Amino acid sequence: MPRTPAAPSLIHATGGARPDFSADGPQVHSYTLDNGMDVVVVPDGRVPVATHMVWYRNGSADDPIGVSGIAHFLEHLMFKGTEKHPAGAFSKVVSELGGQENAFTSYDYTAYFQRVAKEHLGTMMGFEADRMANLRLSDEVVAPERDVVLEERRMRVETDPAAQLSEAMAASLFVHHPYGIPIIGWMHEIEALDRGHALDYYGRFYTPENAILVVAGDVVPDEVLRLADGTYGRVAPRGARPVRVRPREPEPRAMRRVAVADPRVEQPTLQRLYLAPSALTGPARESAALEVLAELLGGGPTSYLYRTLVLDKAVAVNAGAWYMASAIDDTRFALYLVPAHGTSLEVAEEALDAAIRAIPDAALEEAAIARAKTRLVAETVYAADSQTSLARIYGAALAIGETIEDVKRWPSDVEAVTREDLVAAAARVLAPHRSVTGELRKAG
Amino acid sequence: MPRTPAAPSLIHATGGARPDFSADGPQVHSYTLDNGMDVVVVPDGRVPVATHMVWYRNGSADDPIGVSGIAHFLEHLMFKGTEKHPAGAFSKVVSELGGQENAFTSYDYTAYFQRVAKEHLGTMMGFEADRMANLRLSDEVVAPERDVVLEERRMRVETDPAAQLSEAMAASLFVHHPYGIPIIGWMHEIEALDRGHALDYYGRFYTPENAILVVAGDVVPDEVLRLADGTYGRVAPRGARPVRVRPREPEPRAMRRVAVADPRVEQPTLQRLYLAPSALTGPARESAALEVLAELLGGGPTSYLYRTLVLDKAVAVNAGAWYMASAIDDTRFALYLVPAHGTSLEVAEEALDAAIRAIPDAALEEAAIARAKTRLVAETVYAADSQTSLARIYGAALAIGETIEDVKRWPSDVEAVTREDLVAAAARVLAPHRSVTGELRKAG
Repeated sequence: MPRTPAAPSLIHATGGARPDFSADGPQVHSYTLDNGMDVVVVPDGRVPVATHMVWYRNGSADDPIGVSGIAHFLEHLMFKGTEKHPAGAFSKVVSELGGQENAFTSYDYTAYFQRVAKEHLGTMMGFEADRMANLRLSDEVVAPERDVVLEERRMRVETDPAAQLSEAMAASLFVHHPYGIPIIGWMHEIEALDRGHALDYYGRFYTPENAILVVAGDVVPDEVLRLADGTYGRVAPRGARPVRVRPREPEPRAMRRVAVADPRVEQPTLQRLYLAPSALTGPARESAALEVLAELLGGGPTSYLYRTLVLDKAVAVNAGAWYMASAIDDTRFALYLVPAHGTSLEVAEEALDAAIRAIPDAALEEAAIARAKTRLVAETVYAADSQTSLARIYGAALAIGETIEDVKRWPSDVEAVTREDLVAAAARVLAPHRSVTGELRKAG
Repeated sequence: MPRTPAAPSLIHATGGARPDFSADGPQVHSYTLDNGMDVVVVPDGRVPVATHMVWYRNGSADDPIGVSGIAHFLEHLMFKGTEKHPAGAFSKVVSELGGQENAFTSYDYTAYFQRVAKEHLGTMMGFEADRMANLRLSDEVVAPERDVVLEERRMRVETDPAAQLSEAMAASLFVHHPYGIPIIGWMHEIEALDRGHALDYYGRFYTPENAILVVAGDVVPDEVLRLADGTYGRVAPRGARPVRVRPREPEPRAMRRVAVADPRVEQPTLQRLYLAPSALTGPARESAALEVLAELLGGGPTSYLYRTLVLDKAVAVNAGAWYMASAIDDTRFALYLVPAHGTSLEVAEEALDAAIRAIPDAALEEAAIARAKTRLVAETVYAADSQTSLARIYGAALAIGETIEDVKRWPSDVEAVTREDLVAAAARVLAPHRSVTGELRKAG
């Protein structure tokens, strides 16, 4: 669904954008090329630029067992050139044309995009289609790039106690499902990645049947389709879309806690994850209810948790909630707080637990619910200014198996959430046995 | 190594036996049949019986991803008969001959055995060799047996809070390695097991190259070999031993806690698991040191933890430690306590933590170390009375990749452990970030 999660992607180059959406929704055109590649066009004529994205229906959760990190590693290797275009040529052209480019790997998908003046759209397609089929990988290129990824992991995780806590919490929440494995991969498995792994993976997933082209911008749909046919349309089909094989998470039974204490921690924090249904796994209205619940409980300084823990009880300097609805499989609903100076994590957590227990009576007033819905829908309308977000919403939705109609229906799904839906969703999902609580502490 | 772990196996029919070992070690004869099947004979002439075991080098940790429980399920199905011997025929013969039979599935192996008067050894071999190659499985047999396993899981786990805690702790200790998956499998995956899974698995692992025959008893090695050649020797080889594919556990970074609260809990308990090297993964002397450490800390009422927590501080009515050395991959070192009446888990745990911190000075006196070593070695000598244990020690060792020499060397490995080894092993392994603490509480 249209809300981007907190930090599920390894994003390169630029930061992640907020999703973009208008209440009526933009005109969206969709096609399928003869080789099975999906095409989505979102005309947006405000500026003479085009956002060109290719989404692959494979993310880190599709990494073969023991080969974690391969989705992300291949994303790096996709910049290593083809027969026709040597390493760096694509990026150089984007830059010379005054454009921007980006790529990221998430749990459920991998995507590549460029934003250029609209007349260069065909050039982007030519380059992107070329590397879908003709990537050239030698050991001389693979080994140094693996060192780059290892260094990336060292910088992002090994030296960051908060990231270590995050990984340990995910691993405790998802004991069986691969969402418990870091997107970047486990260190010792990254170390073992080689050209063979990369080529196997590339051959399996980088196919037209597995890809979605999304173009947003000052473009004419028919013209986009013509360009797509002349570039992506020439990539040979493989006959079928690759199959994702993922074990399902068992029903949780035990309340879990994870603690990291490290001298480098400047600010202790408390986090709580609950195993929650996603937009795809839950009963019809539960995911929308959880979106409203997260907004109502923890969406900014007027939210219930902020008011209760920061303003009323003064046990925290920040508190909030988020929910990652956009996921193929069961996902995360999160609470967090930063304790006030002089307040222990224990005292702050007690206040959090009391606030959660009081949800039905204390948080779910009709007026508060209405405000949360309005904020949620309005946010997406405001966000519609960003063409990248617009393209991203559709790409992410299609990549996880949602439809354009699902995306367009989202505001009315949110509006349809009732107080009863919220009571039921909170009671079912925010249960201790579904939770992992994380403590980040300064080691003495 | 020769100590059996606390509860890693799903044992059917009879209980698990203590290992058997004499200081000099028995005469052990070993062979390999032409088709690659290993044969170990341990003559033991005290009674005119023979213990006949076949060990397969595949356990639950080799279950394919998403197909947990298949090793154990196939163990059940192995009693469903062949072309030559209909379901139940083998068991009926064992029983008519006054024998006993047994089978179990563990993380690293699956084994089948019978104990009969020595003159029936050849009959056992005939039946066992027959079901290695000629198992017959129809949907009519597979579906009801799956219901049996589901019911087994319901009885053992779903209705037992202690078992639920146990599963959750294992899943938190092993976030990536399959030792975190229950031997019996996750409920929803057992539900999906079918004839196809069983046949695939059987075809992959039930081969002569993957099997070890162990015969202990009043037998002549040459005669055993002749019988084996005429039965197992006729099973067609497959050309190579099947490969086990297991991801390695990443280095742990966070201290974890798991809690189950349930109205059915009569007696709260506290457990602690540490990720520890096994006899196969650790540096040469670390595993032996951990065996001594477990005995010294928690091997019965004279141990350090029992004396400290039960006798001196009176915060617990029981306390102990164990270590599962026998494992292909990194394994568990465990502490546990049962709090005294009126003592909270928190107070008891504080006392446990204080006792652990004090290990180098308080627990590692030379006299205590010597006593622990003597107890460890003596235990195995006393246990040598059991023929089944004798066979079991060799079968388990060979099944995980140890040699007969490794088993025979074990007492001297234990004797060679120094105080420095113990200090180093305790410091490295009993570290908070390697631990999962489990609380079993009565729900109010």
